[in-house]
Amino acid sequence: MIYVGVIGGSIADEKNLKIAYEVGKYIAENGWILVCGGLTGVMESAAKGAFENNGTTIGILPGSDKNSANKYIKFPIATGLGIARNYIIIQSSDILIAINGSYGTLNEISASLNLKKRVIAINSWKLEKAGVVDKNLFYEASTPEEAISIAKRFINGT
Amino acid sequence: MIYVGVIGGSIADEKNLKIAYEVGKYIAENGWILVCGGLTGVMESAAKGAFENNGTTIGILPGSDKNSANKYIKFPIATGLGIARNYIIIQSSDILIAINGSYGTLNEISASLNLKKRVIAINSWKLEKAGVVDKNLFYEASTPEEAISIAKRFINGT
Amino acid sequence: MIYVGVIGGSIADEKNLKIAYEVGKYIAENGWILVCGGLTGVMESAAKGAFENNGTTIGILPGSDKNSANKYIKFPIATGLGIARNYIIIQSSDILIAINGSYGTLNEISASLNLKKRVIAINSWKLEKAGVVDKNLFYEASTPEEAISIAKRFINGT
Amino acid sequence: MIYVGVIGGSIADEKNLKIAYEVGKYIAENGWILVCGGLTGVMESAAKGAFENNGTTIGILPGSDKNSANKYIKFPIATGLGIARNYIIIQSSDILIAINGSYGTLNEISASLNLKKRVIAINSWKLEKAGVVDKNLFYEASTPEEAISIAKRFINGT
Repeated sequence: MIYVGVIGGSIADEKNLKIAYEVGKYIAENGWILVCGGLTGVMESAAKGAFENNGTTIGILPGSDKNSANKYIKFPIATGLGIARNYIIIQSSDILIAINGSYGTLNEISASLNLKKRVIAINSWKLEKAGVVDKNLFYEASTPEEAISIAKRFINGT
Repeated sequence: MIYVGVIGGSIADEKNLKIAYEVGKYIAENGWILVCGGLTGVMESAAKGAFENNGTTIGILPGSDKNSANKYIKFPIATGLGIARNYIIIQSSDILIAINGSYGTLNEISASLNLKKRVIAINSWKLEKAGVVDKNLFYEASTPEEAISIAKRFINGT
Repeated sequence: MIYVGVIGGSIADEKNLKIAYEVGKYIAENGWILVCGGLTGVMESAAKGAFENNGTTIGILPGSDKNSANKYIKFPIATGLGIARNYIIIQSSDILIAINGSYGTLNEISASLNLKKRVIAINSWKLEKAGVVDKNLFYEASTPEEAISIAKRFINGT
Repeated sequence: MIYVGVIGGSIADEKNLKIAYEVGKYIAENGWILVCGGLTGVMESAAKGAFENNGTTIGILPGSDKNSANKYIKFPIATGLGIARNYIIIQSSDILIAINGSYGTLNEISASLNLKKRVIAINSWKLEKAGVVDKNLFYEASTPEEAISIAKRFINGT
């Protein structure tokens, strides 16, 4: 069973929310499970895309109340760990897709790379401009379709 | 959606494994979701009971590899936090059933009580003999049926 | 360098606060470092006992603000992990002294036993009445002096 | 009491190790406490710089054994949380100095920014090239002296 983590800002504009929705939809259509932080913005829109296409969505929450998840999260996990919950999203995911986002997303991208998990970024941090980044771990995509296509290559070995 | 946490030893004798299986089965039959630590013993047997009765099982793992879960865990969560993952099981559960177990189970029972979550214990720690325990939080049951009946009372308000 | 963890209730009566103070004082006099949860009650009184006797005190806080520690904590650590910080107290300590306390203290005692760390309990949970407890890990003492004497035996091998 | 976190690679070249040593030395000379991850490379060299100049050094370790800290750590804290311990370094620090480093350091820098803690970077990630970064939170310095001078401005309000 493949878990695709979707990371991104809790606040996002229409364009990125739409991208998140599409990414979520494709994750569901591929039969993968969507893992995210369970809150608003990119997390909610991606979860909605998966949920409305019969996908399974898991939300790893910073707080102690599993009912604080957005309504598209089928299986919320309440950690009570604050932002340290980011690591659980990463540890549990087979591959990550980052959409837009700010420091929290950068925190998740770097945790992924640190744990040798591949990240595919759309409209997100241009890490290769900021330092040395392993090209076999960090990818950039322009569209949801391209991101999913890269993900498929590693998940299915195709 | 109701999460029932099942906590108990990673090693258990036949009698307690059978109790765990029954508890898992009843959890599934009631449409509740089973949450556990995802490993062996009581965790595995309860997950098996739920899994074989079309239940949903979530395993909150201490390690970093989601594939280290037992095979009856439908949705493994890899935390990489060691035994600190115990808190996530408790935070995520609406009510807990403790079966047998040793220090780890005691650790989970006490975390539950600390977080004001009800625990129903079968063949487990006789806490009321060791100190002051809130009778509205800690219950003892002799059988899986009795434990489920107590759980139902609080979940369904019946 | 020896770390002695002092665990106990955030609320305690005069008798147990006095015991905590004495325990802290003896920890300092022996040149050990006192580790605790950094908050009120037994934690504060033990820290005071050590602090006023030139001891070193470390407080592992549940919150995100290191200034939330009681004033006898020389080195506060802000974890932001809520009660999951209990494990850090235990992981960092060489031996633990439990004074009185409720569920949180039981949580720390059980984490200690789970991690094979010795616990010496004063006016605390009578664990041996509640289940099978390893006599080489869990000790009971009637006074601070007796607790310190037991601790010394294991720390100094005397 | 001011805690200055020093974050950076567990592997570093001579130049950056020297910078780390100087940073540690200045931290000690200013009467601040050095907090770091307690292991090798930049962490060890900065701790050495502080330690050899009568500073206090705290190491927040990923593992369960407080004796796994480098020998310049006066007060090791064993978390057993793996890389999730990064957050504790950040939560506990008043301000951070990042020296060189790879994904782990980026993870710590981003956690700092996420928690609104200032970071001063030397030979490290050029974050402003990779996305939008708050100029009041992220600073770059060319030398240890410059980094300390920026830190002083915020710590002492001078």
